[in-house]
Amino acid sequence: MFLKCENFQKTGSFKIRGGMNAVLSLSTEELKQGIATHSSGNHAQAIAFAARQVGKKAYIVMPATSPKVKVDAVKNYGAEITFCEPKQKILESTLKDIIQRTGAAFVHPYDNYQVITGQATCAKELIEDVPGLDAIITPVGGGGLLSGSALSKHYLLPPAFIYAGEPEGAADAILSFRSGQVERAAFINTIADGLLTTLSDKTVAIIRQYVKDIFLVTEQEITSALRLIYERMKIIVEPSSAVSLAVVLKHRNLFAGKRIGIILTGGNVDVSNSDKWFKD
Amino acid sequence: MFLKCENFQKTGSFKIRGGMNAVLSLSTEELKQGIATHSSGNHAQAIAFAARQVGKKAYIVMPATSPKVKVDAVKNYGAEITFCEPKQKILESTLKDIIQRTGAAFVHPYDNYQVITGQATCAKELIEDVPGLDAIITPVGGGGLLSGSALSKHYLLPPAFIYAGEPEGAADAILSFRSGQVERAAFINTIADGLLTTLSDKTVAIIRQYVKDIFLVTEQEITSALRLIYERMKIIVEPSSAVSLAVVLKHRNLFAGKRIGIILTGGNVDVSNSDKWFKD
Repeated sequence: MFLKCENFQKTGSFKIRGGMNAVLSLSTEELKQGIATHSSGNHAQAIAFAARQVGKKAYIVMPATSPKVKVDAVKNYGAEITFCEPKQKILESTLKDIIQRTGAAFVHPYDNYQVITGQATCAKELIEDVPGLDAIITPVGGGGLLSGSALSKHYLLPPAFIYAGEPEGAADAILSFRSGQVERAAFINTIADGLLTTLSDKTVAIIRQYVKDIFLVTEQEITSALRLIYERMKIIVEPSSAVSLAVVLKHRNLFAGKRIGIILTGGNVDVSNSDKWFKD
Repeated sequence: MFLKCENFQKTGSFKIRGGMNAVLSLSTEELKQGIATHSSGNHAQAIAFAARQVGKKAYIVMPATSPKVKVDAVKNYGAEITFCEPKQKILESTLKDIIQRTGAAFVHPYDNYQVITGQATCAKELIEDVPGLDAIITPVGGGGLLSGSALSKHYLLPPAFIYAGEPEGAADAILSFRSGQVERAAFINTIADGLLTTLSDKTVAIIRQYVKDIFLVTEQEITSALRLIYERMKIIVEPSSAVSLAVVLKHRNLFAGKRIGIILTGGNVDVSNSDKWFKD
């Protein structure tokens, strides 16, 4: 197994790849009134950072339940935060109001080809760094990273397979993968809080075309994988990052003897509140 | 600042350097009946691992209060563990009984020149990897790492200074550094549980000769430094590891503009019980 440690990435997750690419792809005119988005955390940090890099204001709508460590980081990058109820529709309507008021350019967290191609650079680097991978596994939330990884695999390493891991407690992508439409999860109950969003029209299309399969993992399997990463690899990752490793541990026969690339997606964790994941 | 990440070292801490060197320095005759030591954890793991590498039995006396994660690791390396009260005299007398019964060779955690020279390889690598360091800082517990680091600095980088950090709640080395004798701390109260031991005759002599100064840090300063390492560097280290960084943060003027090498000593942490360090 070869781990791509995006917890060590600028802003603490892979999201800076897509956020930076999207912001740098905007015209001077589009950038003029700043950039706006909604995000529970990592995309928010990425956009806040990218906006500062280009000298523009960032407007971020965040769920009031966002971890303090992520809120603090967004603030530190100088963004203006608007809190709202943690519901997709309310996030979207709050953002819409802000965009109407400010004229800021919207960079969607994943339903955006510049974001997707930005995320694609992660698997691209992994493929270049580790010759002869048999498979790449990423977690799937909104599908931006998975879509980008699938595109990189398709163009740069056609013989390999790309898989995704998804929590049983946020199992919407697996439904979308089968139906071809954006589906909702039957229920939400997972510590992998980066993976709660549904796919989008753009990501579901790419994922259906290029991804080999999506595997579900239980909370127990996520926690075991997370604990292994913490205690044996001695690095801090978000629970969402452990989902890919949980897939490999669950399907040992499928992956035995193979060269597997795993993307550890991020490491923005509130350490004063993370031991609860490991209580028996 | 340049961090030497011994949390990523085999057995999870720098202790394998000294343990392995000491075990490999024993004669076939000395090794015959196995190896014995007392340790609250990291030296125990090192000796258990080193013994397995040379195909000999390890007998480890551990305080009954040792973290489960460290006990499990020692067990996994195949060592025989004897638990006792967490008091230095009882650890020593229990070990003495075992050595009399088994004939195993004793490898002291730090009052041993092979252990000290083994630990010296850590600063040696740091000096080789990062040209032109102005200072190296290590935490000090029993003084094995500090002594070894001081020797490497003395022979390989004479113009640099070597400093140590010590918790106010285990402030014995600073007394020994001044008096030239092995002193005890006035009181023990620190999360840096790797630094509770006193110096020894061998380490106090080396430290007096080659170390520039020892700085005390408070529990608050250790916790802040530890949190910075967790949340910004995204790596898992033991509280003892944060003491060196806490020294730099406390004495900014002394270290401003300097190239500082910091040894992060280990990363063996019980993650289900570590958030208490960060509670406000």
